[in-house]
Amino acid sequence: MSDAIVTALLELADDHLVLGHRLSEWCGHAPMLEEDLALPSMGLDLIGAARVLYTRAGEIEGKGRGEDDFAYLRDERAYRNCLLVERPNGDFAQTMLRQLYFAAFMEPYWKAALGSSDAVVQGLAAKALKEVAYHIRHSAEWVIRLGDGTAESAARMAEAVVELHGYTDELFLSSEAAQAAEAAGILPGRAALRTAWEAALKPVFAEAQLDWPEKVWPQSGGRKGEHGEALGHMLAEMQVIARAHPGAVW
Amino acid sequence: MSDAIVTALLELADDHLVLGHRLSEWCGHAPMLEEDLALPSMGLDLIGAARVLYTRAGEIEGKGRGEDDFAYLRDERAYRNCLLVERPNGDFAQTMLRQLYFAAFMEPYWKAALGSSDAVVQGLAAKALKEVAYHIRHSAEWVIRLGDGTAESAARMAEAVVELHGYTDELFLSSEAAQAAEAAGILPGRAALRTAWEAALKPVFAEAQLDWPEKVWPQSGGRKGEHGEALGHMLAEMQVIARAHPGAVW
Repeated sequence: MSDAIVTALLELADDHLVLGHRLSEWCGHAPMLEEDLALPSMGLDLIGAARVLYTRAGEIEGKGRGEDDFAYLRDERAYRNCLLVERPNGDFAQTMLRQLYFAAFMEPYWKAALGSSDAVVQGLAAKALKEVAYHIRHSAEWVIRLGDGTAESAARMAEAVVELHGYTDELFLSSEAAQAAEAAGILPGRAALRTAWEAALKPVFAEAQLDWPEKVWPQSGGRKGEHGEALGHMLAEMQVIARAHPGAVW
Repeated sequence: MSDAIVTALLELADDHLVLGHRLSEWCGHAPMLEEDLALPSMGLDLIGAARVLYTRAGEIEGKGRGEDDFAYLRDERAYRNCLLVERPNGDFAQTMLRQLYFAAFMEPYWKAALGSSDAVVQGLAAKALKEVAYHIRHSAEWVIRLGDGTAESAARMAEAVVELHGYTDELFLSSEAAQAAEAAGILPGRAALRTAWEAALKPVFAEAQLDWPEKVWPQSGGRKGEHGEALGHMLAEMQVIARAHPGAVW
């Protein structure tokens, strides 16, 4: 049982670390100084949440593993993030749409997690809810600005929808581990959040002049460790320094 | 006169943008998850300060230039940062010592700037003072941990002192533009801050088992646009996206 709880917490933590790392890849490369703050700042929120979840998973596991062990010493196959968050940044349109998809899911998720039976998850939910409200606002503004913008920006935003929408389905699937954590009242159910997610997104799509895709080919596998090629590259880069200096900074 | 004020504000802004960008280069490459938050987070503080100063410089200049123009559309020779902040990250020891040197200077600087005759500088000083207190605490902890650590970490920290100390002198020099801004009560004098700076650093060096260098070869030139090779590379990377998409995100 506690194995399943640990796995479920790692799934959630991995979603946050991987997406947080993706956003941090924009550090110093954003097209505007304002975004050079906003993107990494959202990334830091997500990495902060991952740290809390890794630490909690390590406590429950009781084998002495901590945040750095989970982040730096697991390989690609052991990562349990959903595929959406590992998608490459692509252009600004893709980065912002990916963010909106994820944040609009996490908002009702954290709201439900305010009632978690685990005090750490409950406390994190309260903090994350405030952060995710900003993430939604910020990314939705960009999706609207680009979707309802120039011909080129609109084309890029429409392309981002084609590129990413198929990865959103996995957000609503609960692995066996997650189902155990849900039954224990530690984590909220996922399937029930689809209504709130669509209700948040459809008006944004309408304002952005984007068609809501009715038929997409759902992609999944991340919860089983079946990742795209991009995750391996990302982890290699993220882990190289920690693995080169195991256990300590010198 | 207002030309000199603009230049003096740009000098200060460039110090913050360049060092902030250097810290952001650690994004996703820190040896610990904790530092993967702390280093970029300090970087975002600095970039935030740069934005305020660029915007204020643009207002005073009155030619319609704003933060993105100053950040992305000036080349290396037009940057006015001191050389310390552009030094490459090197290893963790160098990054942390550079941070400590700079933060221990900015702390008394911002304290004096609370009395600025410019309301924007005054407001920024109040905010930056809180941030810089954390930067000092965090970097001093690392300097002590590494300096008074293993044989290898101590050797690396001692090497960082050799590498960087000569660049600290420039912090205390005021360009002609800065002197005009000081005479106008907009920015604080620099030379007078040396006592406070040394008083903050020497106990840290003692605890870190580091010798305080008495004789160093002072390096300067940044305020005249005479930069090291490293700045050109950094700016090229920082500016590539903004310059490829001039004026807008598509």
